[in-house]
Formats: sequence, structure tokens, C-alpha cells
Amino acid sequence: MLNKTLTMAVAIGVSVGAGSSAWSSALDDVMKKRGLTQKDLLAAAKTYTPTGGRDEYLAFSSGGQSGQVIVYGVPSMRILKYIGVFTPEPWQGYGFDDESKAVLAQGNINGKEIKFGDTHHPAFSETNGEYNGKFLFINDKANPRIAVIDLHDFETKQIVVNPHFNNEHGGAFVTPNTDYILEAAQYPAPYENEFVPLEQFNDRYRGGVTYWSFDKEKGRIDPSQSFTVEMPPYSQDLSDAGKFVSDGWSFTNSFCSERYVGGIEKGRPPYEAGCSQKDTDFLHVVNWKKAAELFKAGKGKPVNGMDVLSMDTMVENKAMFLIPEPKSPHGIDVSPDGKYMIVSGKLDSHAYVYSFDKMMTAHDAEKYEAHDPYGIPIVSLKDALHKQVAVGLGPLHTQYDSKPCTVFTSIYVDSQVTKWNYCTGKVLDKLSIHYNIGHLVAMEGDSASPDGKYLISLNKLAIDRFNPVGPLHPQNHQLIDISGDKMELLYDMPLPLGEPHYVVAIKADKLKPAIRYKSGWNSRTDTRSKFKARAGREKTVRTCDGDNCTVEVFGTVIRSHITPETIEAEVGDKVIVHLTNLERAEDETHGFAINGTNVNLSIEPGKTASATFIADIEGVFPYYCTEFCSALHLEMEGYLLVKPKGYKDVEGKIVDGTTYSKTDYDKQVGTNHATQDVIDSVVKFITERNYTDFAPVKELVDDAVAQLGFASKWQKDSEASAKSGDYQNATLQAGQWWQYQVKAADIGLRAKTYLEEHGAVVVK
Amino acid sequence: MLNKTLTMAVAIGVSVGAGSSAWSSALDDVMKKRGLTQKDLLAAAKTYTPTGGRDEYLAFSSGGQSGQVIVYGVPSMRILKYIGVFTPEPWQGYGFDDESKAVLAQGNINGKEIKFGDTHHPAFSETNGEYNGKFLFINDKANPRIAVIDLHDFETKQIVVNPHFNNEHGGAFVTPNTDYILEAAQYPAPYENEFVPLEQFNDRYRGGVTYWSFDKEKGRIDPSQSFTVEMPPYSQDLSDAGKFVSDGWSFTNSFCSERYVGGIEKGRPPYEAGCSQKDTDFLHVVNWKKAAELFKAGKGKPVNGMDVLSMDTMVENKAMFLIPEPKSPHGIDVSPDGKYMIVSGKLDSHAYVYSFDKMMTAHDAEKYEAHDPYGIPIVSLKDALHKQVAVGLGPLHTQYDSKPCTVFTSIYVDSQVTKWNYCTGKVLDKLSIHYNIGHLVAMEGDSASPDGKYLISLNKLAIDRFNPVGPLHPQNHQLIDISGDKMELLYDMPLPLGEPHYVVAIKADKLKPAIRYKSGWNSRTDTRSKFKARAGREKTVRTCDGDNCTVEVFGTVIRSHITPETIEAEVGDKVIVHLTNLERAEDETHGFAINGTNVNLSIEPGKTASATFIADIEGVFPYYCTEFCSALHLEMEGYLLVKPKGYKDVEGKIVDGTTYSKTDYDKQVGTNHATQDVIDSVVKFITERNYTDFAPVKELVDDAVAQLGFASKWQKDSEASAKSGDYQNATLQAGQWWQYQVKAADIGLRAKTYLEEHGAVVVK
Repeated sequence: MLNKTLTMAVAIGVSVGAGSSAWSSALDDVMKKRGLTQKDLLAAAKTYTPTGGRDEYLAFSSGGQSGQVIVYGVPSMRILKYIGVFTPEPWQGYGFDDESKAVLAQGNINGKEIKFGDTHHPAFSETNGEYNGKFLFINDKANPRIAVIDLHDFETKQIVVNPHFNNEHGGAFVTPNTDYILEAAQYPAPYENEFVPLEQFNDRYRGGVTYWSFDKEKGRIDPSQSFTVEMPPYSQDLSDAGKFVSDGWSFTNSFCSERYVGGIEKGRPPYEAGCSQKDTDFLHVVNWKKAAELFKAGKGKPVNGMDVLSMDTMVENKAMFLIPEPKSPHGIDVSPDGKYMIVSGKLDSHAYVYSFDKMMTAHDAEKYEAHDPYGIPIVSLKDALHKQVAVGLGPLHTQYDSKPCTVFTSIYVDSQVTKWNYCTGKVLDKLSIHYNIGHLVAMEGDSASPDGKYLISLNKLAIDRFNPVGPLHPQNHQLIDISGDKMELLYDMPLPLGEPHYVVAIKADKLKPAIRYKSGWNSRTDTRSKFKARAGREKTVRTCDGDNCTVEVFGTVIRSHITPETIEAEVGDKVIVHLTNLERAEDETHGFAINGTNVNLSIEPGKTASATFIADIEGVFPYYCTEFCSALHLEMEGYLLVKPKGYKDVEGKIVDGTTYSKTDYDKQVGTNHATQDVIDSVVKFITERNYTDFAPVKELVDDAVAQLGFASKWQKDSEASAKSGDYQNATLQAGQWWQYQVKAADIGLRAKTYLEEHGAVVVK
Repeated sequence: MLNKTLTMAVAIGVSVGAGSSAWSSALDDVMKKRGLTQKDLLAAAKTYTPTGGRDEYLAFSSGGQSGQVIVYGVPSMRILKYIGVFTPEPWQGYGFDDESKAVLAQGNINGKEIKFGDTHHPAFSETNGEYNGKFLFINDKANPRIAVIDLHDFETKQIVVNPHFNNEHGGAFVTPNTDYILEAAQYPAPYENEFVPLEQFNDRYRGGVTYWSFDKEKGRIDPSQSFTVEMPPYSQDLSDAGKFVSDGWSFTNSFCSERYVGGIEKGRPPYEAGCSQKDTDFLHVVNWKKAAELFKAGKGKPVNGMDVLSMDTMVENKAMFLIPEPKSPHGIDVSPDGKYMIVSGKLDSHAYVYSFDKMMTAHDAEKYEAHDPYGIPIVSLKDALHKQVAVGLGPLHTQYDSKPCTVFTSIYVDSQVTKWNYCTGKVLDKLSIHYNIGHLVAMEGDSASPDGKYLISLNKLAIDRFNPVGPLHPQNHQLIDISGDKMELLYDMPLPLGEPHYVVAIKADKLKPAIRYKSGWNSRTDTRSKFKARAGREKTVRTCDGDNCTVEVFGTVIRSHITPETIEAEVGDKVIVHLTNLERAEDETHGFAINGTNVNLSIEPGKTASATFIADIEGVFPYYCTEFCSALHLEMEGYLLVKPKGYKDVEGKIVDGTTYSKTDYDKQVGTNHATQDVIDSVVKFITERNYTDFAPVKELVDDAVAQLGFASKWQKDSEASAKSGDYQNATLQAGQWWQYQVKAADIGLRAKTYLEEHGAVVVK
């Protein structure tokens, strides 16, 4: 009872003092009604982002088995985009237009279309260890692949298939200048695509790390310059690349270095028991610069078309060694200055801080405590360790703060975040989260200069945190304020689709995404599309090679019609539709779907997108714009007519359902002149003001001028028809003239509102 | 300059009066730093939902061409779930497990798999015009279909294909007791699947409305009891069902009653001009109860296996008439008491309020102003109209408030919401939104008793509202507080995936979603799966019919292993894997993916899910749990071994990579006893308190007890092995004993935290 009273007292939190107002009292009321504490209101103020506001950071999250990348803003925690990567997604036309199908087809395995991915660890491209905002890389655990996403347009441009591994978890990690993208195997398997019995696990199953070479000019991975470093069957896990002092080295941890093979169905203890029996696993330390030299010197052996550097070669060249690490670890994180590596294991309550200097001293002196069964030298823990710090039950992943020596470690079993000092080993703070945290991410936390400010706890369970939505729950990302000495929980964000594993966050102003493409653009190859069309130059071509005929459409879309409005084919024809979006206005995307065909395009301003299908059934198939693009959006329609083979058109004329007279024409023209008056008044408002000082308004004005140009064209046509006494067409053409006026007025009103809201002043 | 100063003054908004604290000053600092006004902070307080908080309403949004339904909370505007409906989605295993593939296959058209949908208008099941929280229905515009989603588990259970239409937009709408779900055609086409030239548009192309019969007992649509009402080729649009006085009638509006056929590629003005030329289109008024009687009396004519009631039959039976409506309308909305119908047209600045009483008086008296070209009688606007109200440029859709006679209309061109009184015709308030609003939704706004409180403006463009994320923008849903006289904008929510058209919102406490299934459940058919397995009863069966062999796995998943851990097949075998999730704990979903096979399951607690594939390639294919379910999640692994045809197993034994001695065993047992001490202390903490008063804790305790039971089983095994001197197995078994202890400890700690946070008291 006492507790309840106290809570109420806290809830009525806003001080109603001198000078306070109706506002203050309204705020009190809302807090009381919604049961908000002072702490809650402070968190609300730290995260709430008013209309038009911008987030300081953008977080890029893996989507897990949804096969996508999820983009959200920090601190508002509003999800801005799901980017299709390994899984087709129709809203963005991904895997539906021919151009993106070609990207997905790069990810086919043994000729088989793979319909999903299990994305885990995204990584930004870097320059000198700093995120440069150009590209994002992401892996697929289920079918080892890496995808390249261009941050210029947030589209997936490339997928490469790992030729050696049948599973991976530890991708993607980049070297400090994005020379290589690292992808580590997880569950060991033979490199060759052949059956090898489990009895030969130790001898024939292998792990490894693939170093994918990135062509920074082309913005694409170059498999011909990439190689794999062979490793023992230890279930390699996550990696990180060294930087500054440790540049040229990479670090990959592992679990199940017991090399246990389960078989619970045969009475053997399961993998979980056998893979967590030893106290330590192995951190793999690789000199990737040396490995790259060895590869270039031809020391690799091609397997499935890509070179493998054997363990023997690596060891002979002193390019790889091992260090014991706490068992079943998850994550290896190099300090911003490159001097320390932090590893923690879910089954050891300590975080281990390794010193790069120490491990190199031992390695250089060849001071090894032993060699593993594959002849790889082992530097002892004692010779590499800087500190061992008790951080909690189930430590998992560490992120670096902007403050010196300060880190945050996720604690799985305790469901906590521990803040600690890796120089002194002192624990500074602990914060409880809900529930069972996996990774965590700090702002620019994997870069050479972490920003601090916010930390996000990527919780793997949501349980009772949100309104229930059935047996399958959302995930929960909790935002934490780390600007002060004590961590403060700010916000719970449900993830409505996908099961994120890891997130990277970049300062938003490092990104400069395009809002339109050059006209007639193939966005997947980043070249002008050879299928582009210009306004007035649209065409449909039917060609036959014997009985095999192809109907190819070079069309356009613009508010509010598709050209052509009729596509004619015969049963069995291959139909290829290329559509170019003629819009230059921001956010004027058009879609295109044809009934019964699986044709579904998303065509952003400037883009040319294509769809190919067989018109296999006779009939009448409506098509339309799927994006609500304008007031007359529903009228953005047309028909695919699939005629019987060899059908002879019957002479006939379309009978208009409604006929128009001079009266109708005059009425429409009257409306148009009245509309023009409205437009003129808006134009006057805008041009009297300093509208050229406002970039968005300048763009709107350009768009409105274009629409008025179209209006003018139809006005001329309509006047010509009227002059010839053809009031049917004159009326319809005047209608189209008016349609363009309405679009211009719509845009003009938006510009006027913008000027009013942004303090434009009268200049003439 | 003055403006800027004023803004700053407003930004520093919290009154620091008597009794104010460090908190107040911290709040001032945050507001200043983030540029928040007093109004912003009030909006933040009205929407911010602290950890564990619940939303008052759940909104169900169509996803447009993403083919999904999006669920979000109001007022927090956090998205909770994307439900796979017409498009496969791997996170939820939708379209990947055999069970959900069967649902998607119901939506095949002419035998063709349709890989997306264009969802537009969701509708809740109703009882007496009130949402009953049982089902949600949603349409596909591109390929006319209706889906049934069960709100018990938020899964799609059924898809029906419209046999008459080739396009629709106006689905789904329900009658007040969910007897029928309405689906209206949009772009006219012949009912028969045959080519008909556009020259025969007026005679052979048709619109219509399908009335799908819903079997409330079974929770499924019954096509055999469903029928279509034939309508002219007028591009029917949205519908609404009457209620109370107007119960038994339905209302469907239309555009392009001009029956215009475009052809811009041939120099004809496009559809947008010809379809918007007349001042009015037609509201179709249908007596669906009469139509149902006619259908049952055999007055329909089967077309493609489902009955059509012809226009003649409908007119002869006085079951259908037309009323002029403002041109190019979008939405017809019946008032909560059923007495009025509001329609507005995007190209007419007025909203029209029709009186049901008036239109019925005219219809009953057969007072028609004319008949349309198809013989359908037309009641004059004058004889049906109650009010005509100037609401703004481009009015689109109306929602009802909880206050009498009060409505909100979305205004597309003006980008506003107009609040007005439909009894008096008075405009009450206007609010600007960003930008170009489509539909809007009020809480329970389509029900017989709207709740008021919140309105959501479903904006079709986001333009500059959010951080830029490339040419394809998110959509923007703006939350508006309508509890006071003036509307107040509260929140901008980006939609990261999909292009929502319409939303319905239900009081959250009407929903009682399950958190687990009965054990061994096929969630798509809602029956016990014949492929279920119980713990200890897992089996793998290989059967051959000549050369055709099938490997069928009846397995289980539980923290943290899959049974079996090895699946053996020969090249060419059909492999069928059925997995039952043995968990009863909330949110303990497991996933299952096999390399290279497209196998990807989401198995919620209790569910049995299946995957069928051909093992077409020889090799070693790891499988694993895709959901981060526990600390040892990464060890939840296994191998599919695909051997060459006729392969003879070589005699051999798995050689353990690591061997264990009595010392190892004793060490593990020591750890286990220490861990048991921790568990005992947690158990003591819990059982000393009134934990049975807390339902979530009771569930956690049940789960922990189950884990300890498993631990105990492995303890016995390990002690037996030790007794027999087999320290290799004894150690591994002791390891598994410890694994279960860790799981129990994890759960116990979660329960302890819950009790601490929820004020549990010591009772003994």
C-alpha cells in the first residue's frame, strides 16, 4: 500500500511552480493517466522525435532468417527500411524485376535458387578504421554467402557464394581499409562437395576463414582475388581485424575445439554437452597481409575454383597461431587503438583482455606452450593476457565507449550490461535488461573512434515486454543512454519481422543517399539501362522466330498513367515489359503489377525496371500502379490482352461509354480556368517569397513547372480538337489538361505550406 | 531573428518552480539540446511507453504489395509484427514449412504459384457490428483473393481465389455478424477466362461484388455458400455493410462510370482523363439478404464453379439500385447507427451524406430518376442526400468519432484532416498532415461504437519527414490526438516495409492471443499433427518403393539440441523432416535450417512443422537452430549426410577429439554441485515469497522445474557411467547435467528479478 502511494507520488512528476502554465498541468494529467514516472518522461524527451526531425545515428541490423537488413534511427528507434538481401521482397520489387533477379541468381548454390538467407553480422566499409558510409556487407549463415549493399541507394548489388564452406556464422568483418571482408566457417565440413563420414571428422572436416577481396573502385567483391585460410574443425565463430599497431592481423574465435560429434538419437550426449566440456577454446590469430602475399605468390591450392592456403603453409610462414580463450566465446573485439582484444565466453563469467604487444612478443620469439593436433603453435594464455575480469554470468559481446578504456559487455544469463574498465579491470556499472541479451552495439562502436552516447541491447527474447501477438514474439532492442556515469534505459523497441543478431550504427550525416536515379537507370548494375524509354518515345515491338514470339514493351510511368495502356500478345508469347519512371520528384515511386503473372515492379524516380514472363493463358489481365502516387492513382491502369494463337482482330472501334458535347467542353474549360486562378495565386505566394533559399521548395517548383508544361501540351491539343468540332476528344483532352493542373496545384500547395512553416519572407 | 528567439524560449519549456528538482533541470537540458517544444514534450508523454508497458489499441494495417499485414501498437506506434499472408516470409517459416505451403497453395491461380499479394483493406470479424477480436480478413488487389487470419495465433489460415474477377480493390468488408465478407471487382474484365476485345468493353466486361460466406464455427470461408452479384463495368471500389436500420444492405462505390477505355500509346487521352470526366459516379446499393435468398433459391448461374446473380435478377427482385455520388470517390462509410452513409470523391471538394431513410423511401416507392444502360434504377441524389459539406480539396475517406455526429475526413490534395459534423454540416477543425493522406483510421472506427481517442493519418508520401534511406521512401503514419476539441498531431511513424492502404484498430484487451500450442500441433489446420513426436520417441524411418526411397524424420527440438543430430540419406532420396517443439515456455521458439536445401522452419512452443525436399546432391550439410534460444544455441546443430547411391558404411567409430579422465569428471561434478548451490539459493528466494501470486513467475518455475528434471536424468546417467569406470561418457553426461542446470539457473534468475521488480513479499 505504501509502495503504491509512493509510485503515485512519483508519477505526478512535473513541478507546478511559479510561472507554470496550462501546459504543465496538462503534462501532469497525462503522466498521471498513463502512469509515467519522472524517469519515464526524461526517457521520452531523450527519444521522442517530432515530425520532420532527424535521428543522429542510423542502425543497420541483420534480420536473421528473414534474410534482410533492417535500418532504424537512433534515438527515435523508428524502423526506416527493410532492405531485401537474400530473400525476395515484393514491396521493393526485389526478386521480382529482372534486374534484381540477376543479383539473387548470383547467390544460387549448385544451380539451385536459394529463397532465404540467415543474416547475422553486418559491417560497414571503412577507411583507416573509420566507417566511410559507402557500403554495408552482410552474411548468410545457412548458405555461406556475403552480400554487398550500396548505401547510395540502400540496394543489394552483389551476392557471392563461399565455395569452401557449408555453413558460416562469423561474417562479415572488414579490414581497416576494406581490402578484405572476412567470412569464417562455423560447423566444420569437407571443402569438397562430397560425402565424408563423421568417423573422419578430425581428418577430413575443416573450418577456415575466407578473405574476400573488395574492389573499392567498382564497389564489388572480386572472387578472383579472394582466398580461404584453412583451419582445424573447431567451429570458428566471429572475427575482428586489427588496426593501427595490430593492422595486418585478424582474430577469429571458436567453440567446440573439443571436436565433439554429437548423436543424441544414438544415446550420445548432444553437441551442447560435448562442445562445452573444456575450459578453453582457441582464438585464431592470422597475419592476413602475409596470407595475401602468400596467395599472390601462388602458395594457395585451388579448391572449387578458389584458392585455399593450407594450415601447413600458414604455419611454415608464421602467419597463424592460436591462443586459449574462455570457452564457448561469442565475439572478439579489437580496441579502437588496436592494442587490445577482448573475448568473453558464455560459459565463463570472465572477460579476457589480450595484449597485442604481449602475444606478438611471444609469437616473434616462438615461445609457444604447445602445438594443436594440426601443428598450429599455441601461445599460452599467460603470455598473451592483459586482464581477466569478472563481468557476470554469460558474458557475450563487448563494445567500446568514447571514453578511454571503457567498455560494455552483454551478459546473457544475468540479463545485464556490465560497464567496465579494461585498463584497470574495474567494473563500473551494471544495468538489468529484459531478457537475455545477445550482442550489443554502441554508436560507431566497431570503428577506430567510437562515439559513445547510446548503446543498444539486442535482446533475444521479448516474453512479456509488449502486447501479445501470438506464440511467435517480436525481438526487443533496448536503447540505453551511456552519456553519463550510470547507464539509463531509455526505450524498448520491438522488431516486428526477423530475428536480428548484430547491429552496426553510423553517424547519420555520413550517409548521403540519393533520392532519384539518373533517368533510365539499372540500379543493380549502376549503369544506364539499355531498355530505358523517354517520354513520347515509348514503343511495343513483337518479333517472332518461327512460332516463338516475343512482345517487348519499352514504356514509361508518370503521374498518373502508364504508357502503354494496352499490351497485346498471343498465348505462348514471351512478354518483356521495361518501364522507366519519368519522375524527378522525391518519393514519386510508381509500382506495376499485372494480374495472374507474378509481375510486380517498384520503380523509383529515374529507374528502369523489367519483367519477363510467358503469356501462357488466354484472357484479359488488368495492370495498374501499385503505389498510391497521386489523386488519380486508381486510374493508373491498363490491360494485357492475351489473344488465342493466330487470332485475327475483328474490325471495330471502341464505343465510348459516355459522349461529350460542346457544353461539356465549355464546362471543363471553365473549371480549368478557375483552377488556373488557384494555381496563379499559389505561384504568386511562392515567387513573392525567398523560395530559392529552400532546396526542397525549389525541387517542388521544378516539379510543378513540369506538370504545368504537360498541362499546356494537353490544353493545345484540346483547343485544336474543339476548333475542329471534335468535342468528344476536346473534352477528354481538357480533362487531361485539368489532371495536370491538379497535380501542379497539389505540389504548389505543398511548397506553400513548407514556406509558411519554415519562415520564408517576402522579397519582392 | 525574433522568430528564432521565440522558438528558443518555447524550447526551454519546463517550469523550474518551487519544489523542482534535478530532474526538472535535466529535462530542461534535454529539451534545449534536442530542440523540443512544450507541445513536443506533451506529445512524447502521450505516446512514450516504458519497458513492459502495454498499448491500448492494436492497429492492423495492410502492407500493400508486400503482401503482408502489419500490426502496431497505439499510442506507442511501435510495430509488433508482420504477418505473412500472400507472400512467403522465412522468419516465420511462412511458405517454407509444408503446413503453410498448403495455405499458400490454396491461393494458386490457374495452377500457378503466386508469389506476392497487394493487400489493401483489412477488416475484423464482427458480432452485432462490434469487433469480436477473432479473425482478420484481407484482400489481394493484384490477384483477387481473400485471406483469413486467426487472431488466436496471428497466423494466416486460409486463402480463397475469386473465380470471377481479374482485379479487385474493395475487399475486405464484413456484414455486422460476419455472415459475409465483401470483395468488389475494380478494373472490369470478362468473368469467363477468355479473351474479349476492348471493343466489346460495354457489353462483355463486368464488375461486381462477391459475397463470401463465412463459417463462424470452422473459422473458414465456405466458397460453396458464396456468390457474386454482377455489376456494370464501372470500376467498383470500396464497400461498407449497413447495420441496425440498414442491416441487410451493402453499399459499394465506383469510379469510371464513364466506361472509358484508354490508350495513350494510340493518342487517346489516358484513363485518368476519361475516367474522371463526369461530375458523378454511382453508389451501388445492394440488398445482400435478398441476394442471399435468391442464391439459396437457385436464382444464380454458375460461372467457373461459383454462382453469379445477374443484374437482371437483382433488378427484378428490387435488390439493387444506384445513386449518383461525387466523382472518383474512395470509401463509403456507414454511420455507427446505420442511418447515414458518407461518400467523398477525390475530385469534388464536398463530402456527401446520404440518408438511408430517404433512399429507401424513394426505392420503396420506385421513385427513380432514370435507369442506367444496364437497366439498373437510379435514385436521384436529391432524393437520397442529407447534406453536402465542403470539407477541402481531395476528400477521400471518413472515420467516425465516439462523439455524436462527429467525423474526420482525409483531404488528399490539401494534405489535411477535416473534422466536421455530419448532422449539421458544420466544419469543426482542420489539421495539416505531411503529406497527401490516403485513408485514415479511428480507434474501432468501423464498428457500431467508435472509441474516438486517436486517429491515424495514413500518409502516402514521406518525402522529407525522416532520415533519407535512398530513392524508395518509407510511408508515414501520423498519430493524432482527437480527445479534445482541436486535433493534435502526436507522432510520425515510418513504415519500413510495405505500402499500407488501410488500417483497422481494435481495443487490445479484446485480443487473447495464445503463447503456445497444444503439443504436436499443426497450426495451419488447427488440429493435432499426425507427424508429432514426443521426447524419447523420436525416430527416423527410411522406406523404399523400388528405387524411390524416403527418409522421414519424426524429431523434436528443445533447449539446446535437435533430436536427431544426424540424418542420413542417399542421393535422390526424398527427405521429410517433422519437428515438434517440446518447449512450454513463452517465447521459446526454435528454428531449423539445413544448408543448401531451402529448409527453414519456425517452430513455436508446441508446434509441429515439416519440410520436404529431395537430397539431390551428395555431401555434408550442417543444420542448426536459427533462433538464438539459449546460451548454448550455437551448439544446437547436426548434420544431414547425403551418401552416394548404394553407399556401404565403412566400419568405424567416431574418434573423440578430446578424451576425459576421472579428474575431468570430478571437476565437472564439482562445478555442478557449486551450480546447484546457486540454484538452491534462487529457489529459496522464490519459494519464500508469494510467487504463486504472479502468473509469469509460476510459468518460469514450471519451466525451471522441467529443466532440473532433465538435469537429474543426466546426473543419473553420468553417475552410472562413472560407476562403470567410463569417465569419457561420465564427463560428457555430467556436462549435459550442467547444461540443464545453467538453463534452470537462467530461468530462476529471471523469476527472481520479476519478483524483485513486482513487489513480492516474504510469506514463510
